[in-house]
Amino acid sequence: MPLLSLTDLGPWPALGYQGSPLDRAAHLRGSVEDLAKREDARFYLLGGEWVVLHPGEPLRDPLFTADAATALGSGKRIFLGLADGAPRFAARFDPAEKERLEARGLLVPDLRSTAVQGLVSTDHLAALACGKAMLAWHGRHRFCANCGTRTRAIEGGWRRDCPSCGAQHFPRTDPVVIMLTYRGDQCLLGRAPHFAPEMWSCLAGFVEPGETIEEAVRRETLEETGITTGAVRYRWSQPWPYPMSLMFGCMAEATSQTITMDANELAGARWFSREETAKMLVRAHPEGLFVPPANAIAHHLIRAFVEGATV
Amino acid sequence: MPLLSLTDLGPWPALGYQGSPLDRAAHLRGSVEDLAKREDARFYLLGGEWVVLHPGEPLRDPLFTADAATALGSGKRIFLGLADGAPRFAARFDPAEKERLEARGLLVPDLRSTAVQGLVSTDHLAALACGKAMLAWHGRHRFCANCGTRTRAIEGGWRRDCPSCGAQHFPRTDPVVIMLTYRGDQCLLGRAPHFAPEMWSCLAGFVEPGETIEEAVRRETLEETGITTGAVRYRWSQPWPYPMSLMFGCMAEATSQTITMDANELAGARWFSREETAKMLVRAHPEGLFVPPANAIAHHLIRAFVEGATV
Repeated sequence: MPLLSLTDLGPWPALGYQGSPLDRAAHLRGSVEDLAKREDARFYLLGGEWVVLHPGEPLRDPLFTADAATALGSGKRIFLGLADGAPRFAARFDPAEKERLEARGLLVPDLRSTAVQGLVSTDHLAALACGKAMLAWHGRHRFCANCGTRTRAIEGGWRRDCPSCGAQHFPRTDPVVIMLTYRGDQCLLGRAPHFAPEMWSCLAGFVEPGETIEEAVRRETLEETGITTGAVRYRWSQPWPYPMSLMFGCMAEATSQTITMDANELAGARWFSREETAKMLVRAHPEGLFVPPANAIAHHLIRAFVEGATV
Repeated sequence: MPLLSLTDLGPWPALGYQGSPLDRAAHLRGSVEDLAKREDARFYLLGGEWVVLHPGEPLRDPLFTADAATALGSGKRIFLGLADGAPRFAARFDPAEKERLEARGLLVPDLRSTAVQGLVSTDHLAALACGKAMLAWHGRHRFCANCGTRTRAIEGGWRRDCPSCGAQHFPRTDPVVIMLTYRGDQCLLGRAPHFAPEMWSCLAGFVEPGETIEEAVRRETLEETGITTGAVRYRWSQPWPYPMSLMFGCMAEATSQTITMDANELAGARWFSREETAKMLVRAHPEGLFVPPANAIAHHLIRAFVEGATV
């Protein structure tokens, strides 16, 4: 069977959570009280995994006025930047209020579904990702890691200061490598235990202190599958707000063949031919196997392999 | 004057703090008590900026036995991995003990000088960087950021657990972009206020939540110098243990010329010709201007520009 042609794969899709049209305007972070009161200020409402949307077709509006945001019980606010000069914020709502908001006619999907199902304009996804990551950081960093005192958010949410020891705490972003490992016309995919049974994806793992992206790619591939790798090529990066990662998408050239899977980390690991991978990419696999959707960087790395763009 | 030839620049130097020969052996982190007692266990001694070395020529030995490490007053221990099967640790000594150690004939330089002056075999630099970053993290993260309770280190120092709320805390690594921005035969270099007066380097800055490497490069360049950039190409990454960063070295193509410097961030920013930059690289500039040494990724990005390897 011939390879699926590029035409069959369709145009290259957009990578999720990046390409924000907002100007972060960091110099305004000290004066957010005034910005939040402006009539053109708009708020994204986020709580845990959930995001609040106005009903609408085909796209839902995720922006609320200051009055609406206050009425919907929002708490903590993060200044995300300016959209054509208008201030944009992320505001936290209590996830326990989800049903009450839905009863009022609002939609409250989780952010993953919002991205995958295209519920909002893609223009909003990077801002939503940033807001979600920032609110998750605040939620888990209310106390000073240096001395244990309760800290307070300043600079529009971009810093937390300790009133006791004076430590300044900045939002945390965890570097993660995600790699399409290939050998000739085969690629190595794995299944995490929490995946849907038919879903296969790229291997991935946190970068540890003291290693480069390329070293992390080789270590994680070796640890999880026993496969050794040579050349590693960075392709793209992607903010991944689950809860606060930055993904480095790489192509890695395998130099061994025999898989020894780490059963503590993976539920499956195997080689796939280019043809089988192409079918998984377009959801035409005879056994129903598939790969992550186009908003995830894994999809793009797998597509690059299918198209032969490994270098 | 003709460009300096590649011969004049000498062979491409090694990038510092990467290329560790250690096997991190993460599966052994749960049993470090036994590993630390092994006769072939060796310890790096680090405290704040300082590292303890045995005297020696031309290279100093940074490894100590368990007995020596204990005698020198070491505290916290981090399991770094295995070197040819032998366990390696980073152990903390109290920087207040620096003079006492020097009085005993040991050398106690800072890690930057150790790297720049080549005091130890380059094989040790990645392990020292990892140990320094990990110890810095423990030093500033003794309390649970979620609830304020004192946490305890487990897994050979690779995790801190909260006995009160159960939160697990992992070592933090801060993503930083560093970029050589160029336009034709000119490159854009800057001076941070703390630099030596003659030193110029690449622009750099922390990646913020919700942005890609490429977006961070463009934002930081714009914020610090007003210069807009188009294509951004990742080249290398480097662990940078001051205190705990991972640097992403990029080449960025400028699309504007007029510099508007942010005086809060920089003490200088200007365009340099390729010829002038080449002289700074080999420390042959008539006015004594220079760029960072070869252990820093900035040096490598600047050299890539001088050699015309911008793509």
